[in-house]
Amino acid sequence: MSKVNLMDDYSEGCHPRILEILAETNLIQQEGYGEDAYSREARQFIRERINCSDADIFFVSGGTQANLIVIAASLRPHESVIAVDSGHINVHEAGAIEATGHRINGVPGSDGKMQVTDIESVLDGHGDVPHMVKPKMVYISNSTEIGTCYLKHELEELSAFCRDRGLFLFMDGARLGSALCADGNDLSLADVAELTDVFYIGGTKNGALLGEAIVITNNSIKEDFPFHLKQHGALTAKGRLLGIQFVALFRDDLFFELAAHANKMAGILAGAIKAKDYPFLVETPSNQIFPIFPDTRIKQLAEKYAFHIWQRVDDTHSAIRLVTSWATEQHVVDQFILDLDSFQ
Amino acid sequence: MSKVNLMDDYSEGCHPRILEILAETNLIQQEGYGEDAYSREARQFIRERINCSDADIFFVSGGTQANLIVIAASLRPHESVIAVDSGHINVHEAGAIEATGHRINGVPGSDGKMQVTDIESVLDGHGDVPHMVKPKMVYISNSTEIGTCYLKHELEELSAFCRDRGLFLFMDGARLGSALCADGNDLSLADVAELTDVFYIGGTKNGALLGEAIVITNNSIKEDFPFHLKQHGALTAKGRLLGIQFVALFRDDLFFELAAHANKMAGILAGAIKAKDYPFLVETPSNQIFPIFPDTRIKQLAEKYAFHIWQRVDDTHSAIRLVTSWATEQHVVDQFILDLDSFQ
Amino acid sequence: MSKVNLMDDYSEGCHPRILEILAETNLIQQEGYGEDAYSREARQFIRERINCSDADIFFVSGGTQANLIVIAASLRPHESVIAVDSGHINVHEAGAIEATGHRINGVPGSDGKMQVTDIESVLDGHGDVPHMVKPKMVYISNSTEIGTCYLKHELEELSAFCRDRGLFLFMDGARLGSALCADGNDLSLADVAELTDVFYIGGTKNGALLGEAIVITNNSIKEDFPFHLKQHGALTAKGRLLGIQFVALFRDDLFFELAAHANKMAGILAGAIKAKDYPFLVETPSNQIFPIFPDTRIKQLAEKYAFHIWQRVDDTHSAIRLVTSWATEQHVVDQFILDLDSFQ
Amino acid sequence: MSKVNLMDDYSEGCHPRILEILAETNLIQQEGYGEDAYSREARQFIRERINCSDADIFFVSGGTQANLIVIAASLRPHESVIAVDSGHINVHEAGAIEATGHRINGVPGSDGKMQVTDIESVLDGHGDVPHMVKPKMVYISNSTEIGTCYLKHELEELSAFCRDRGLFLFMDGARLGSALCADGNDLSLADVAELTDVFYIGGTKNGALLGEAIVITNNSIKEDFPFHLKQHGALTAKGRLLGIQFVALFRDDLFFELAAHANKMAGILAGAIKAKDYPFLVETPSNQIFPIFPDTRIKQLAEKYAFHIWQRVDDTHSAIRLVTSWATEQHVVDQFILDLDSFQ
Repeated sequence: MSKVNLMDDYSEGCHPRILEILAETNLIQQEGYGEDAYSREARQFIRERINCSDADIFFVSGGTQANLIVIAASLRPHESVIAVDSGHINVHEAGAIEATGHRINGVPGSDGKMQVTDIESVLDGHGDVPHMVKPKMVYISNSTEIGTCYLKHELEELSAFCRDRGLFLFMDGARLGSALCADGNDLSLADVAELTDVFYIGGTKNGALLGEAIVITNNSIKEDFPFHLKQHGALTAKGRLLGIQFVALFRDDLFFELAAHANKMAGILAGAIKAKDYPFLVETPSNQIFPIFPDTRIKQLAEKYAFHIWQRVDDTHSAIRLVTSWATEQHVVDQFILDLDSFQ
Repeated sequence: MSKVNLMDDYSEGCHPRILEILAETNLIQQEGYGEDAYSREARQFIRERINCSDADIFFVSGGTQANLIVIAASLRPHESVIAVDSGHINVHEAGAIEATGHRINGVPGSDGKMQVTDIESVLDGHGDVPHMVKPKMVYISNSTEIGTCYLKHELEELSAFCRDRGLFLFMDGARLGSALCADGNDLSLADVAELTDVFYIGGTKNGALLGEAIVITNNSIKEDFPFHLKQHGALTAKGRLLGIQFVALFRDDLFFELAAHANKMAGILAGAIKAKDYPFLVETPSNQIFPIFPDTRIKQLAEKYAFHIWQRVDDTHSAIRLVTSWATEQHVVDQFILDLDSFQ
Repeated sequence: MSKVNLMDDYSEGCHPRILEILAETNLIQQEGYGEDAYSREARQFIRERINCSDADIFFVSGGTQANLIVIAASLRPHESVIAVDSGHINVHEAGAIEATGHRINGVPGSDGKMQVTDIESVLDGHGDVPHMVKPKMVYISNSTEIGTCYLKHELEELSAFCRDRGLFLFMDGARLGSALCADGNDLSLADVAELTDVFYIGGTKNGALLGEAIVITNNSIKEDFPFHLKQHGALTAKGRLLGIQFVALFRDDLFFELAAHANKMAGILAGAIKAKDYPFLVETPSNQIFPIFPDTRIKQLAEKYAFHIWQRVDDTHSAIRLVTSWATEQHVVDQFILDLDSFQ
Repeated sequence: MSKVNLMDDYSEGCHPRILEILAETNLIQQEGYGEDAYSREARQFIRERINCSDADIFFVSGGTQANLIVIAASLRPHESVIAVDSGHINVHEAGAIEATGHRINGVPGSDGKMQVTDIESVLDGHGDVPHMVKPKMVYISNSTEIGTCYLKHELEELSAFCRDRGLFLFMDGARLGSALCADGNDLSLADVAELTDVFYIGGTKNGALLGEAIVITNNSIKEDFPFHLKQHGALTAKGRLLGIQFVALFRDDLFFELAAHANKMAGILAGAIKAKDYPFLVETPSNQIFPIFPDTRIKQLAEKYAFHIWQRVDDTHSAIRLVTSWATEQHVVDQFILDLDSFQ
């Protein structure tokens, strides 16, 4: 990669502390398949954080795997999952959910976030039983695919509605760290655990080599869950690799420190871009920002920086996505801002 | 794990050289999803080893994942895969293959190995089309689930038969290193590539933290393969983690050195046990051995060593499985032999 | 059913001629599973009609079955099917397509019909391979779920586009008879066969007890198709029941006569309603019409007639769906019109 | 079919009484999808017969459909179904069960019948959770695929064992009529309902054009069952066709009369063959018999009669399958016996 990366939050390896612990523990023999001491310890740290001693916690290697297994384990064959049109499962998982037999009911959402009215419209439109699928789960991402975040009252409303209507609420937390450390965030990890039925904590995009921690609080989803892990190839022989990383992230506040750093870098970028009067596709408090630039400017930037061109806005402007991470150094951000000036 | 482990070959972390390279490369930015420089380099090393420049190579996190993706990508819905009754996909994968919609035709095999006559009997018994599945793939493991290995002429016979009958031949190589370094082995990695349509090289059980390298030589299986990886959650964001490990294993002969060490430790164990006139369930040249002991002896051993009790043999005897690995130290083996003596 | 039925086209048994032939042939022994003389004869009649001697033809019991089997047999696991949002597979099949593992890409369409631009937008939006499904088939219905029909030039455009882009074109013909006999239709059954890769001819909604004839002209979809029938429970033991009905429908022009009658009845209804200045949700030349009435009028009508309230139009008006069939008698239509007057 | 059919029990159309009722009711309008008056009436007749007023009953078009829907609706993804090796789902359904994602655990059985010890051995062999599937249902056929039948005490033992171990017991009753009318049978339809969780009553092979009545007594299988019917294309638009046939079969004793006739014809055949000292592959009291003849004799018979050659017995002998039905006339049976003599 010759360009400076603002493309994603998984271009480096992992936080050095993780490598240290991997090295320290390397030759200590452990049981396989998640029964190792580190996985047990990591579960304990997370249970304490969410203030829920009986949550079931499983570590898997990636987000698509987490999504497909949670959904396949939760739904019966005729049940569907509701997601916003821009939801990761709806766009970027090569049909992973459908491959487990389930329909996704797409809804527009608002700024990437699910609204109670979205869910309601799906339920209202699915009255012709048994000719239609039965919506049974609501999938949300926090932060969302376009960097927005749920406020506590928003999640409370979704949660209350779902419980009232017998729907599971599932939060994809591939970027949950960034969401929980966002400016203005009023959600805690314990709130997330309390308000959802199942969610996961993303390690891959927040400093781990790989790994997501699935947290299940709803008893009916807990039942026989390990079988589903195994059936989809997610029961890692050396589960220690995943456990150790979550020990490193949750033994102290590393998980939150890394996310806060990523957000801070994004915030500096966004502030400077805004100060130059560039508009944004959407306001985001997390580590993904979506400024709108003239295409000529984008072309200049692209010679030095790697990023996604997200969406054409008009004939001469597009929104780009800039992503920062735990590993983004301040000088990169500063240089980007300088470069933006020099291009003027 | 308080006992000395002879239970499996995935109780430690990874060979130290892997940790070194992970640390060296940690902050170098790379593209995601297997497009990183290390994965490209590892593919090149393997292509050279198998003497096949146009093989497609993909790295995934585990064996069940490799098995289910290869099979799902190769077969149409009505096609089945033939495996010996003791085959991993037939026993220990929680229905992973069936979950992708495919039937496994179980056959007895001989000492864990597929015979041409096994395949023939399935084909002969599936003439009542379209009321029966259409067998289309043969799945074998090398080494097998009970530690035996294919000789070159055996693999040639299977390969010729499969090609004649239009069947794909797929080798599960979770323990391929051990097979290729076994006493008496006359197969090379290049032979395996030439005689099969698709196979994989197991890293997890031979010194890696996790990772299997799927090698596809048959063009019809290559087509669109990455979609299947993604659909099953196997397209790792930080593919570098897998690539780096296979660089470490294949840049020089580390992969073979580690397997040879494991085999050597098993050979010493087996020789000493044989010298004490204990019988074996099956003769195995690889890193899994299956001695038969009196149950009283097994009870004594189990106080100090961790291993699987594999199979009851008669009222007072059972076969146990002892597994050695790249990390098994000679003093462990020596001590086991001494302990066996002291128990006499 | 105490009310007069304008709800659907499957409320009666079958055309009496079918019962006659069933009785005549009842005790003649025939081979099972579609190998009977009647099925062979029916296939021959249809092949002549479509002017395609090498089409593969299979009879199945219903439309959902036809849809799910054709799609499952045509697509590989990562491939998707494009359908308009109102398409039957997208709404009213309880997730049947997803249950075979495939994603449906919904598009808005226009008056229930697929546009080339709809397909194009899906292809354009699916460039991020392999993270997204691969669109491979286009599903259309003729007549559509809202009674509209494709003109020849429309089908030609879709067909040319699909062939250019390597997409299968599949026509759901549950109401194909009505479409081909609609006022203004310029498509023949032979045109449909030539312009699509696979389609089916609906018997259930056009005078049969049950039965759809799947016609496959694309060789790659023909391959091993009977296995897919069997796997989904659609290989009827007494295939004669289906064959006999299609003999009755296609030996002479009964299939078209029945559809023309249904259309005629709908046309009289529509003409009279239009003459009273009621608007319509959409102009339809087939056996489904969608007049808009004040809710008070609908309430009056609903006391005597059975029909679907299709869609709320404004605070005081809704569109209803009136469906006529081969069995709708003219006096029913006349009475409905009289009643509509009397309610004024 | 130029030969006299002793090949199967579905070579004719249906019992004439069914055609009569179809004709009588043909133009009476009815609701679709199983909500018609005839289906309701048929359900009532069956509920009375089984002495279970709250059984859920659904009519589907064939046996494979019944099997795959019952199993898919009952099991979660990681659960499996136990069946004897010769079971229909295990051999002759083109992978229909696996296509819904479920593994079948094959067991040897005895004379085609499941033994408690068969089930026990599967449970004993599946302790390594979560690496193996979880057996959850036992599938049996009555009469079996080789014509044998369950006695009441045998079914009671299976039932008690299954309930004790939390397994569903599912009876495939494609030939249930023949079983219940077999010489020596001591099971009633009510016994079957009481001792199983779900079963079906085969119409197709006992005088109907097509149709099987699925009877569900276990509440957990009842839940949302119609969705599964729809999802697999088994919710017939003109459900009246199925309902009417079961009215005809169960309004009085027609169902049992037809089965008794088939058995009687088979009994005469078997008695005469036995009297000529030909051995049998297995003793069967139902409408399928398996005499063993010299291959020369089989060749002679095959010129005039259609039947399956079932199994080679030795170098010069094979077992053939002769099947009688409700429609087999006595003169056919008599002639077969005469011919057998004349060939001597």
